Amino acid sequence: MMTVSEAAKAFLACDRYLILTHRNPDGDTVGSASAFCRGLRALGKSAYLYRNPQITKTYLPFAEPLFAPEGYVPDVTVAVDVADVRMYPNGYTGRPEYCIDHHGSNPGFAGETCLMAHKASCGEAVLEILKAMNAPIDGDVADALYAAVSTDCGAFQYRNTTADTLRAAAELIELGADHVALNKKLFRTFSRGRLTLEGMVYTTMRQYRDGTLNVAAVSLKMLEEAGAAEEDMDDLASLAGKLAGVEASVTLREMAGGMVKASVRTNGNPDASKVCAKFGGGGHVMASGCSMECTLEEAEARIVAAMLEEWQ
Amino acid sequence: MMTVSEAAKAFLACDRYLILTHRNPDGDTVGSASAFCRGLRALGKSAYLYRNPQITKTYLPFAEPLFAPEGYVPDVTVAVDVADVRMYPNGYTGRPEYCIDHHGSNPGFAGETCLMAHKASCGEAVLEILKAMNAPIDGDVADALYAAVSTDCGAFQYRNTTADTLRAAAELIELGADHVALNKKLFRTFSRGRLTLEGMVYTTMRQYRDGTLNVAAVSLKMLEEAGAAEEDMDDLASLAGKLAGVEASVTLREMAGGMVKASVRTNGNPDASKVCAKFGGGGHVMASGCSMECTLEEAEARIVAAMLEEWQ
Repeated sequence: MMTVSEAAKAFLACDRYLILTHRNPDGDTVGSASAFCRGLRALGKSAYLYRNPQITKTYLPFAEPLFAPEGYVPDVTVAVDVADVRMYPNGYTGRPEYCIDHHGSNPGFAGETCLMAHKASCGEAVLEILKAMNAPIDGDVADALYAAVSTDCGAFQYRNTTADTLRAAAELIELGADHVALNKKLFRTFSRGRLTLEGMVYTTMRQYRDGTLNVAAVSLKMLEEAGAAEEDMDDLASLAGKLAGVEASVTLREMAGGMVKASVRTNGNPDASKVCAKFGGGGHVMASGCSMECTLEEAEARIVAAMLEEWQ
Repeated sequence: MMTVSEAAKAFLACDRYLILTHRNPDGDTVGSASAFCRGLRALGKSAYLYRNPQITKTYLPFAEPLFAPEGYVPDVTVAVDVADVRMYPNGYTGRPEYCIDHHGSNPGFAGETCLMAHKASCGEAVLEILKAMNAPIDGDVADALYAAVSTDCGAFQYRNTTADTLRAAAELIELGADHVALNKKLFRTFSRGRLTLEGMVYTTMRQYRDGTLNVAAVSLKMLEEAGAAEEDMDDLASLAGKLAGVEASVTLREMAGGMVKASVRTNGNPDASKVCAKFGGGGHVMASGCSMECTLEEAEARIVAAMLEEWQ
């Protein structure tokens, strides 16, 4: 494990960087990698991003101008926000010399790792490292880091948000991040398919147990009618929990081939992992998942019964 | 006008406080007043809140334990977040000795005013004053101020959010604000009526001009079917602007008696105030309103035509 100052020293001594984002890339990995790449360049280094084919159009503007050209041969590879070798981006087969991360579970797969597990986002770790390197931080770097920080803490709403997260965001605004435009783009803009699907969920969800259990069921027909794509499914399981009075929610999604996927969210009671274990699934006490081979209606009846049984 | 240190000195010299919140009270006025009242009490002062009858149940827990008993006779009255005499709470007829505010338009109706117009919220002003008074800030005060700050900047999403706003929130978390519970309560919990109504809006809104103009029409029948109350209408006009690609939106609401209220939101083009002026309404370039006596369908046709005409 490297400290921030050790990492800064090591990165100042190298050149010809390739920077990896993780599989199923989110705002934190793309924003952090983009900012780190630009910061290295501002210090006179050669630096490019691995051409991760999964980066979606929301985050592509941060990454695309920095993608490594065909045939680029790096001296050092740095994995950013990559928690495990299983999270290597599609097509990558090497072993990174360095890793910058904030996942406490990171096993240290890279040559050297700078792990800041107390940070809500990897973006906060990259900000500290760039400052320790005295890298110039311009508006583009600040934008990328603001995207990283703010998306990983759910626009400062999630449980992982700390005073330090808010201070990092404050610093990035002062460094030139266009937080107004980024907030609008990242948190207040939705596709037609997503909004229609949300609308369908809100108008069809059903309550049980005096309104403390809320169930949303999303059929293949609804998805088709909404014109919703896979990317419109992000965080779908959080919608049913928005209803006042709800202590636990289940989101059911009909899959092709007669399967139903269930996502269970609770305040801890009932234990979501115990409920899902009954159907061969699992996860955490407050968030778990499982699959069933049945109709949506049957899945709802089964999982509601299991929830009521486990409720203390 | 008083500076923060002048205000602190003045408030330390007085006792027997009555604190006013504003008409149509929001999180900022209630949270700020509640925190100021508790801070004064922690300094050994007698302090109560004016019994503002309009405080809604979301914010009542901050205010109710502090309401002045019948017959309480204050020495000094402090208006908090009250921008104008027209914003006095229902039933109040006096003139406050002091005012703490962040509205640049405050005309100075009180005896003395501490105006911090650069603050996104009045809560940030109260935090500074309490610190200048060396008032003990406990978890209840921090909770009330976090509610004040975070609601007035739309959970750090609105244009008024500054680096200082985020730093104030960071400080409040360190002072013991339960930001996780408050975020959940204030920003991620909605009534059944509200969610159903949002769902109806998302599934029925219509696009014009290659998707750059989005129109939501809310009928009396929809409100009834959704079981939506007046308090579920908050910020309804922002929903149609969430659709990707939209540059301007119109939200139409059918009122009893054959009237339709229109709320127009744009990025500046077309000029919303010019569009609404055609129907006898007005407002700002980016946000205006008007009323029409016609059906929802007619109102939609008329205002869409006016929007297209004004679009540069």
